[in-house]
Amino acid sequence: MSAPSPVHAIIPFRPVNPKTRLSTVMDQEEREAFARAMLGDVISALKDAGCAPCLLSTVPFSSGDDDVATQIDTRDLNEALNAYLSRQQTPVLVIMSDLPLVTPDAIRRLVSCSADVGIVPGRGGGTNVLYIRKPQEFRVDYYGASFCDHVRIAEDAGLSYEVIDSFFMSTDIDEKEDLVEILIHGQGRSRRFLQEIGICLSLEQGRVGVQRSAHE
Amino acid sequence: MSAPSPVHAIIPFRPVNPKTRLSTVMDQEEREAFARAMLGDVISALKDAGCAPCLLSTVPFSSGDDDVATQIDTRDLNEALNAYLSRQQTPVLVIMSDLPLVTPDAIRRLVSCSADVGIVPGRGGGTNVLYIRKPQEFRVDYYGASFCDHVRIAEDAGLSYEVIDSFFMSTDIDEKEDLVEILIHGQGRSRRFLQEIGICLSLEQGRVGVQRSAHE
Repeated sequence: MSAPSPVHAIIPFRPVNPKTRLSTVMDQEEREAFARAMLGDVISALKDAGCAPCLLSTVPFSSGDDDVATQIDTRDLNEALNAYLSRQQTPVLVIMSDLPLVTPDAIRRLVSCSADVGIVPGRGGGTNVLYIRKPQEFRVDYYGASFCDHVRIAEDAGLSYEVIDSFFMSTDIDEKEDLVEILIHGQGRSRRFLQEIGICLSLEQGRVGVQRSAHE
Repeated sequence: MSAPSPVHAIIPFRPVNPKTRLSTVMDQEEREAFARAMLGDVISALKDAGCAPCLLSTVPFSSGDDDVATQIDTRDLNEALNAYLSRQQTPVLVIMSDLPLVTPDAIRRLVSCSADVGIVPGRGGGTNVLYIRKPQEFRVDYYGASFCDHVRIAEDAGLSYEVIDSFFMSTDIDEKEDLVEILIHGQGRSRRFLQEIGICLSLEQGRVGVQRSAHE
């Protein structure tokens, strides 16, 4: 059941002006710090699950973790990832950096799936994590309904696939409302960051949201 | 690992004028038919997972499935469910009827958890499914951030709990945007119903949504 060597996990990361849809509650500097906090949570979970994380960035960036190298590729996300996959001889995990709720258990469940490709959907037709056993036989196609595209790419390549059912991995953080999930379920740096800048839960007409206190 | 007798699964159901937030894309009659379709998907998954489903409704209603009885209780959801729990001697699953993506595998994962209470969060602090081993020692408190309330109730009662990580069970269908998930991931009656009334995926500026064709 256990992998002979650590699974390589590649994490695309945008250090500059990320998460612009959060601009209503965070300025650019805060969004950059928040993106680093979410990345830190993803890296922690990967390492706990025995994976070897590596960043993919268009600009030089250090996560501050000496175990985590950064590959620089200035091309578009799909081109850069597909170039990376074409160079790999062993199974690869492709995981987004905005999944701060991801747990080591969820990652272990994904990398122990028996199919050629494990696909973790995000909401709205997205793909949040991919586990690709034969990286040279698969290619990624993000944007739009990428979940459907990845299913089709696997089928066209004659590769089996399995959909991995995980709320924590399906929860990507893009909008203010998504922060609710971190405040309720998070246990890491992202949650602490939100608390530090005064973002907390609010209850309006029975529905849970977030608000930013005006104390600072 | 396997339970000696089928787990009783209670499904609160509102047959009349349900899912009012879907009014922008369905009239009342359609919303009632759609709610029955989602209920049908939930019942199928429960039966496939070896559970014995039972409905809880404020008005007389038949699911059309002879195996599925309806308990009528005119009280508020929490009162009705807590009265039900207080009468049970064996483990109980409480599952919402608007989870059409729920799979037998996800239910099996929930009922095989070793804790006293298995909690499946919904988005926004909700609780979508509960597995309660000792129903007389627990009580439910839906509405608001019920996930946090259920954690606290378990802790206060000295019961262990486990959070079950499932995208399919966390996906409750309340709003138009949620229908995307059924069209992408659904395989049952709910998906067929949406297709029959002409609801299909749309792609606007790279984001996946739904639209209703004007053919009818």
